[in-house]
Amino acid sequence: MMKTGISFVTQGTVTSPAGFLAGATGAGIKRKDAADLGILYSEVACSAVGMFTANRIKAAPVAVTSRRLPSAAVRAVVVNSGCANASVGEPGLKDATRMAELTAGKLAVAPESVLVASTGVIGRRLPMELIETGIGRISLSKEGGHELARAIMTTDTVPKEAAVIVGDGHEGFTIGGIAKGSGMIHPDLATLLCFLATDAALDLGFLGDALKNAVAASFNMVSIDGDTSPNDMVLIMANGRAGNAPITQGSSLADGFQEALSRLCIRLARGIAGDGEGAGKLITVTVSGALSIGDAKLAARTITASSLVKTAVHGNDPNWGRVIAALGRSGAEVKEERIELYIGDICLVRAGEPLPFDEGKVIEVLDSGEVPISLKLNLGTASATAWGCDLSPEYVTINSDYTT
Amino acid sequence: MMKTGISFVTQGTVTSPAGFLAGATGAGIKRKDAADLGILYSEVACSAVGMFTANRIKAAPVAVTSRRLPSAAVRAVVVNSGCANASVGEPGLKDATRMAELTAGKLAVAPESVLVASTGVIGRRLPMELIETGIGRISLSKEGGHELARAIMTTDTVPKEAAVIVGDGHEGFTIGGIAKGSGMIHPDLATLLCFLATDAALDLGFLGDALKNAVAASFNMVSIDGDTSPNDMVLIMANGRAGNAPITQGSSLADGFQEALSRLCIRLARGIAGDGEGAGKLITVTVSGALSIGDAKLAARTITASSLVKTAVHGNDPNWGRVIAALGRSGAEVKEERIELYIGDICLVRAGEPLPFDEGKVIEVLDSGEVPISLKLNLGTASATAWGCDLSPEYVTINSDYTT
Repeated sequence: MMKTGISFVTQGTVTSPAGFLAGATGAGIKRKDAADLGILYSEVACSAVGMFTANRIKAAPVAVTSRRLPSAAVRAVVVNSGCANASVGEPGLKDATRMAELTAGKLAVAPESVLVASTGVIGRRLPMELIETGIGRISLSKEGGHELARAIMTTDTVPKEAAVIVGDGHEGFTIGGIAKGSGMIHPDLATLLCFLATDAALDLGFLGDALKNAVAASFNMVSIDGDTSPNDMVLIMANGRAGNAPITQGSSLADGFQEALSRLCIRLARGIAGDGEGAGKLITVTVSGALSIGDAKLAARTITASSLVKTAVHGNDPNWGRVIAALGRSGAEVKEERIELYIGDICLVRAGEPLPFDEGKVIEVLDSGEVPISLKLNLGTASATAWGCDLSPEYVTINSDYTT
Repeated sequence: MMKTGISFVTQGTVTSPAGFLAGATGAGIKRKDAADLGILYSEVACSAVGMFTANRIKAAPVAVTSRRLPSAAVRAVVVNSGCANASVGEPGLKDATRMAELTAGKLAVAPESVLVASTGVIGRRLPMELIETGIGRISLSKEGGHELARAIMTTDTVPKEAAVIVGDGHEGFTIGGIAKGSGMIHPDLATLLCFLATDAALDLGFLGDALKNAVAASFNMVSIDGDTSPNDMVLIMANGRAGNAPITQGSSLADGFQEALSRLCIRLARGIAGDGEGAGKLITVTVSGALSIGDAKLAARTITASSLVKTAVHGNDPNWGRVIAALGRSGAEVKEERIELYIGDICLVRAGEPLPFDEGKVIEVLDSGEVPISLKLNLGTASATAWGCDLSPEYVTINSDYTT
């Protein structure tokens, strides 16, 4: 393996890699005046793979896009927010297909080379006239990734976008991405839309494996509220403009690509967790010393998803018993008498028994933007990290009048 | 099977059956001045069985009580709120055992004939001096079930108590019960304490089966917030004072006992759901036409547990797509094109497609004290009902400063 440097790009986005353009517009799908429709476009055909919601109710765009992948001939993705195009029966499939066709017409590419995604309210038809007018109005540019990142937002308060450069000189390449999250976020392809692009050339099989690994360590370790949506989708398009020999399992760039893709996805996933609906804090839970990776993940995810842990963090309440209770119900193998619990660097439990602690210092950790909770199970060597957010009264307010 | 009449007793409680007494006191375990310690006592030895938390971290009283059951010689239960006696290591077991001993001393019964339960904050030692003084102060009476129901409350706003009379004449008997819930409530022996008492005589094996069946249809179908605690416990004591021949599987009173016990547990479970922390509404979800009972239960429980469904109900928002999304992620077998969805009597989805509906009428249903949601899957014949509550900003407020 060649040692490759990985660095994040300043103001990187999905159009940072060579040969990608994007643009967005306010088509009027959302009631408020905001960008809600956009296109990501590659100047040349891409290898592309995707991962989709595990929800048994699948939105129409998920059905249409998943049938078109994997593919070596993808040119664009069209995406809207404000309407999920889910639970509307057969007409939804026609609308999703038509949305791709309209985009293909504008870009003069084959209809099947266009993927489609939606997010927003479930159970309403897409307003196809607004979509058609909107698609006509989108202009693509090299900086358009930033607009597109905003256009896919629903209750997100900030866009999530990033890009990494791998290596330098003749073998370097770039990966960029944008994501939206906010509500309906739970491990199982954490509920979201994420579009990734790279100018590296990649073998399609390797690309699929790399995406699975990256998602497992990032989006699948994020929980906002335990709900998942019918619209979840993570797509990656690789257009080969970097000019490298296609990366395959075992080739010199393979490890560098995997690491860069995982780090990019983790950055986007952390952004989603920290911007959960009504959230004021990012909660990072690390479980180590577990008997298996499965146990470590289960425990870390269960703790980040616990309403009682989330409300305690919100209120700066050092009620650590809730962390232990969530660990206990996670199903992970534990021996109570071996458990160590830390909030920040402060050890609260050792050998399963509470230690005296300085409440003021723990409250100080809880009162910061990122709250690290770590558990050492002292049973084995496996570890995992999950991300979540606090639960605030604003979460309830936001979700109590979403459609009305 | 003899046809037996079942009727709820006016102001029934755990001491409604013959031969049971109870009492409670404010021992000072809770910071506020309220009853927090109590005893349920039977004048004669009872057959008793219990069901306990599935949480791998088990509170000390769960460990002590579960070792003593099943038993044909139980005389009392002592219970406190305000402190869970969980996650405090070895000393917790000593404290729980001592709490039973002190009670046995007061009642002049064998220490092993006393069961013990606790609920409250995790990670703190029981204040044994307060417990000892408190136990000394408790006076038992026939009406004491009402006091005991209050003494086990934590963030509950009303006590949950009920009793049923089965049959009449020489073969009649009574079952009574009290329960507490409010937070950390989720299916898997929904997090709670519940003490049941009957003057019927029962075979111990049959009693265990009957309790399992009743809990499966009641407490295990309640969700407040997805969390479970290390302290959950449902106990039933049968003292035989009704003078019947011991009920066993297949005996004439068996079906009547099972039905009465299930109905009693369902009433207590509904009380817990409707009094969830910060809750203003009881949500009743019925799933029918499922391929299996397992599927029907899974779907009904997932929907009642969905934060997004709960917040929508809180805000009277007819955002039915969230019900469909929760159904989809539940794992239950569904065919989207067969789904029918009702809120109250109003059909919103038929054959998987949205129907036009009168928003005002749906809001009227959502704005009532009990919100019935029903789904017909049209795949099979199995059905199940689950209970939950809305999610309000008050839930967050209550749980943000529980210990501080």
